[in-house]
Amino acid sequence: MILTVTLNAALDVTYETPQVSWDGVNRVAAVHRRAGGKGVNVARVLAALGQDVLVTGLAGGPTGRAVERDLDSAGLAHALVPVAGETRTTLVVAEPAAHTLFNEPGPTVGEDEFADFLRTYEALLREARAVVLSGSLPRGLPATTYATLAAFARDRGVPAIVDADGEPLRHAPDGRPAIIKPNAEELARAVPHGSPEEGAEALRDRGAGAVIVSLGASGALAVTADGTFRARMPYAVDGNPTGAGDALVAGLALGLVAPGPWPELLRRAAALGAAAVAAPVAGAFDPGVYEAVHPLIEIV
Amino acid sequence: MILTVTLNAALDVTYETPQVSWDGVNRVAAVHRRAGGKGVNVARVLAALGQDVLVTGLAGGPTGRAVERDLDSAGLAHALVPVAGETRTTLVVAEPAAHTLFNEPGPTVGEDEFADFLRTYEALLREARAVVLSGSLPRGLPATTYATLAAFARDRGVPAIVDADGEPLRHAPDGRPAIIKPNAEELARAVPHGSPEEGAEALRDRGAGAVIVSLGASGALAVTADGTFRARMPYAVDGNPTGAGDALVAGLALGLVAPGPWPELLRRAAALGAAAVAAPVAGAFDPGVYEAVHPLIEIV
Repeated sequence: MILTVTLNAALDVTYETPQVSWDGVNRVAAVHRRAGGKGVNVARVLAALGQDVLVTGLAGGPTGRAVERDLDSAGLAHALVPVAGETRTTLVVAEPAAHTLFNEPGPTVGEDEFADFLRTYEALLREARAVVLSGSLPRGLPATTYATLAAFARDRGVPAIVDADGEPLRHAPDGRPAIIKPNAEELARAVPHGSPEEGAEALRDRGAGAVIVSLGASGALAVTADGTFRARMPYAVDGNPTGAGDALVAGLALGLVAPGPWPELLRRAAALGAAAVAAPVAGAFDPGVYEAVHPLIEIV
Repeated sequence: MILTVTLNAALDVTYETPQVSWDGVNRVAAVHRRAGGKGVNVARVLAALGQDVLVTGLAGGPTGRAVERDLDSAGLAHALVPVAGETRTTLVVAEPAAHTLFNEPGPTVGEDEFADFLRTYEALLREARAVVLSGSLPRGLPATTYATLAAFARDRGVPAIVDADGEPLRHAPDGRPAIIKPNAEELARAVPHGSPEEGAEALRDRGAGAVIVSLGASGALAVTADGTFRARMPYAVDGNPTGAGDALVAGLALGLVAPGPWPELLRRAAALGAAAVAAPVAGAFDPGVYEAVHPLIEIV
């Protein structure tokens, strides 16, 4: 199976309200709750593509339980390691003309809890053909965490993808992951000077097997051992870009379990990213859009 | 023990934020979660007064579990009956200068679920010396619910207090509860014509043993079989009036398990209500304020 790691899992809650009375009392018309976090989104896409996938990470408190319950109802296998703190909620207050987000701080993870996670992670790696390390880190975990987890996987012959930002991204190459996948802004923060290509090459020089930079509607850039490739999109897909990067990561994970030439892998991953824009929620993609856009993506 | 019934239990969540960016992304500085609902608040006050108390009602989903967990951590015994729908959350987004409330709709309760509750309620009544029926009803339950539950208790020799609003308050006298406790606005909605005293007399004429009207900083009015009494407060207590009515109801419940003359019972209940204003959260009261204000309340 493909293992996805979500150390900072979330319960994504949406409050639909006709119009919010700020500093007043509001009746919420409808509530939606859904397990979230980038690794969960990647797992949803992989499961929709028929892949055997397992969600791991950390979950705590009743909110952690709500995440597990939603994974159950989505038919996603999971082995989340319990922590004492409460899993974060991300709340969107959705009015017709405005979306206000509230991000809870989430749990602070202790050393013992991370040691528990590492034991579970090690056991799960025995069955894993690839591992996806995605998203923010909860408080308490060092910025070297993804480097540590990637190295741990590599030592056991399992290729890893890291999708991170900030210090965890800067440290990621030390773990020698098969792939690092930043977007252009994340890459610019991690490697402040030069073009995206130069930034990607810098991360590769530091230890990444390949660096794939997602460029939104402009496609993607891949700096690999076989050369540098760009995916050029035939047109911009309208919709919600949240989760597009996760769908692209899911496409890259497919390439780790069924290797092929980079141009082909990159085309498929970029098509999945575009198809995710056409779907209303993160972790979903539109198969029709995928079929339409996939053959039209140019790899140069 | 004293049984408190909270059919529409809630998880009261507070997000502390320095300043909200509406239509933007906000980091929540601190999150507080606490079991809520009027019956839970009454139980907290009774437990703080050393009374043996049990919380019943309905709870569903991970949010219901969060309510149970908070009751556990508060040391409050509970026997909440499971429902399929998810217990509501009430969210306060607390900025220094503004409080915005979001009330989730909560579960819709089915007939089978209410039948389950009635079986539990009947079993718990065997040990109960008084029962408190407080707060809003979840969707799916008829407006006669509190009348039904009060009659059920009465048939088993257990005196009931009803603290309700709207149609459930209008129907409450049909169950012949020992006490109905509206505030002035609730009473005016239920009995639109006449003074608070006339309104209270009307509810008593329809079947209530006594009607106690909470009047905020003005004290309380009691229309009873022994006559009509008013509690006059010596001064207004500064603070948060949320939960003051619940503390007053807790005081009235004490009178049901240890009867005494109405002036004494009313003075104690009004003092508890005032002491609750001085406490920062619903369900708490300030013992110092209680001791200070209690002897100064005039009953006329």
